[in-house]
Amino acid sequence: MAWNLLVGQSGGPTAVINSSLAGVYESAKAFGAEHVYGMQYGIEGLLEGRIVDLDRQLGDKMAIELLKRTPSSFLGSCRHKLPDAEVNEAPYRTLFQLFDRYKIGAVLYIGGNDSMDTIAKLAAYGAAKNSDIRFIGVPKTIDNDLVGTDHTPGYGSAAKYIATILKEVICDSSVYDIRSVTVAEIMGRHTGWLAGAASLAAGSDSDGPDIILLPERVFDEEAFLARVAELEARRHNVIIAASEGVKNRDGVFLCDLVSTAGQLDAFGHKAILSGTSRYLADLIRVRLGCKTRAIEFSTLQRCASHLASRTDITEAYQVGGAAVEAAFRGQTGKMCGIRRLADQPYRTETALVDVTAVANREKCVPAEWITPDGMQVTADFERYARPLIQAELTPIYINGVPQHIHLETE
Amino acid sequence: MAWNLLVGQSGGPTAVINSSLAGVYESAKAFGAEHVYGMQYGIEGLLEGRIVDLDRQLGDKMAIELLKRTPSSFLGSCRHKLPDAEVNEAPYRTLFQLFDRYKIGAVLYIGGNDSMDTIAKLAAYGAAKNSDIRFIGVPKTIDNDLVGTDHTPGYGSAAKYIATILKEVICDSSVYDIRSVTVAEIMGRHTGWLAGAASLAAGSDSDGPDIILLPERVFDEEAFLARVAELEARRHNVIIAASEGVKNRDGVFLCDLVSTAGQLDAFGHKAILSGTSRYLADLIRVRLGCKTRAIEFSTLQRCASHLASRTDITEAYQVGGAAVEAAFRGQTGKMCGIRRLADQPYRTETALVDVTAVANREKCVPAEWITPDGMQVTADFERYARPLIQAELTPIYINGVPQHIHLETE
Repeated sequence: MAWNLLVGQSGGPTAVINSSLAGVYESAKAFGAEHVYGMQYGIEGLLEGRIVDLDRQLGDKMAIELLKRTPSSFLGSCRHKLPDAEVNEAPYRTLFQLFDRYKIGAVLYIGGNDSMDTIAKLAAYGAAKNSDIRFIGVPKTIDNDLVGTDHTPGYGSAAKYIATILKEVICDSSVYDIRSVTVAEIMGRHTGWLAGAASLAAGSDSDGPDIILLPERVFDEEAFLARVAELEARRHNVIIAASEGVKNRDGVFLCDLVSTAGQLDAFGHKAILSGTSRYLADLIRVRLGCKTRAIEFSTLQRCASHLASRTDITEAYQVGGAAVEAAFRGQTGKMCGIRRLADQPYRTETALVDVTAVANREKCVPAEWITPDGMQVTADFERYARPLIQAELTPIYINGVPQHIHLETE
Repeated sequence: MAWNLLVGQSGGPTAVINSSLAGVYESAKAFGAEHVYGMQYGIEGLLEGRIVDLDRQLGDKMAIELLKRTPSSFLGSCRHKLPDAEVNEAPYRTLFQLFDRYKIGAVLYIGGNDSMDTIAKLAAYGAAKNSDIRFIGVPKTIDNDLVGTDHTPGYGSAAKYIATILKEVICDSSVYDIRSVTVAEIMGRHTGWLAGAASLAAGSDSDGPDIILLPERVFDEEAFLARVAELEARRHNVIIAASEGVKNRDGVFLCDLVSTAGQLDAFGHKAILSGTSRYLADLIRVRLGCKTRAIEFSTLQRCASHLASRTDITEAYQVGGAAVEAAFRGQTGKMCGIRRLADQPYRTETALVDVTAVANREKCVPAEWITPDGMQVTADFERYARPLIQAELTPIYINGVPQHIHLETE
């Protein structure tokens, strides 16, 4: 077969999505790929013919080391869902013509469950057309909500970032002899994997968050306020980690309760005020009369490569590489996930799953890993998540800041 | 003289204020102090008699190493200004009785210009009463606004944090093939040292911020929008770093323009909406029709010890130690600052200054270090600031997160 390889990145970035790209690139060369091409801005860019030759850019080892330490998506990304081929075949014809022109033997797509949908559709179309191109998905998402894998590359680094900075924020919150409640807002619109990672701030030197709110549980305002009042009565500083995805009984996001209050911005337009943490901080301040502070952990959760988990970087690299090997060995329509062999000492292996079993599905935090009151995670959660944040990969600092590598385009 | 030493921390914390405490502690022991006491919550706690014995807590080298890596103020802090002794002598009598009881020979106070005011007042009162207690200030503030020192410990780490995460945010901002304007809000209510540090994100792999707004220059809305429009016309992603202290022609903080729009929170109360970045992002969106994103760099700027500058940690330790030496040699009413000997290779020495020359004053970014249009800093700014963010001090990671040390109180 023609053994050029095409790789793309899709969906929201992570701190280690480029480590998967490094794994794909190096394995492709090891398995004899003549050219490794990248799609710029994922399948969306590919449909516009935006293909880059990666050999010139990733051909030396220093480039690979920088790539592992560069956040965001080196190739650029998109959020583009292919139509069903029966409904609209045009994009498939465009794509397969490009695959032919570039003599592509395998297409690798690094992304979340929407990306697995893309792989599933391309593999099905290819099979229907008797194409021998292989389509393999490489999992990626900070949200950790993919089925078919023990966890997703990207999650461990986001979890390490959340746990580390929450620990620092907790130090900061107790600096004055003043009672206060701090509400930290954590990403995760649909699942509580990231919010739960706040629990990893706890250790011999930190109590971690007093309350964790996950989207898996309906927000019970009265129970929540009672719990905060009880905590506030016996400790100086109460720390709350809240997922941005927490909803009330009516299924409304708490952050939307803020936005729908009819506020105008300084220019008389309807304000765009996100803020689960803002909502909760206001709620506590108004109802309990406490001094409160809201803090958003922001987009850094997905791009703080200076604080990435080495375990995560390594596994991201491994699934990228194993996905290429699978393609080389004739597999198609698969995602290369991670299977956990043991918690202690932590060991994993890569494992292929049928991509149709992954696409468009969502994995929540198991109900039994959330405490009965819905305001904490259990020891099982820690047993699962703690290994994923272990060890570091030192950034390469130049002039005092971490050095990155960027795609060169004409 | 009695050679027990009392040390306190005051004002907002930094990532390296505890490194100064480590320097004070270790030098005090080296110069033969029998006991080193700490005031809990600064002068405010001291007035309530809250004194802790540090020998039990900082007596081993691992404790010192953890202390250097622990953000926030180990001893707790306060924002408390002593009254003039002529107006109200009572607190001075309380304090000097405590000094007597604990056989204090020297009082060291780590803080900003308010703290230097405290040292000045205590030294003057002591001199008037023929006390032989020495009072020495140790500079600390992320804001870098102290006179009498080339720069303040705490600034370099905040600057390194700002430059590093801005660099990561810039990577993140270009991930999709979408035009956007990102506005990052940076601390510094009165001076632009921190906002200027955003320029340090620039290097061979990053353009850094396109615009930097400092409080030293009045915000000119039309000139600003014209500049954003011009940038937006020729690049995909425009990056703006704005100080929270930027004011308009009327001397009103931009963030207050947001708050005073009469907004209510979700509970019908007047909303507390901070947000220079929110204001600017809304302004750009409304006036130029761009997709915008506001991000606050938040309290992490003062507590991200996982990303501290080793230069900063070392200098914080040095000024703490040199302050003790000065006290031991009979100095009082001084602050131990930093004098720069050379930019390249960067070298400094500690230097004593009269604390009355420091107290209650403020150092702004020099006008000639800001570009004529008021929207960038010059190469001189970089020459000044770049050395301060050099090198790192690896956190001690336990269970995947940096380990800290906390004051043990009964």
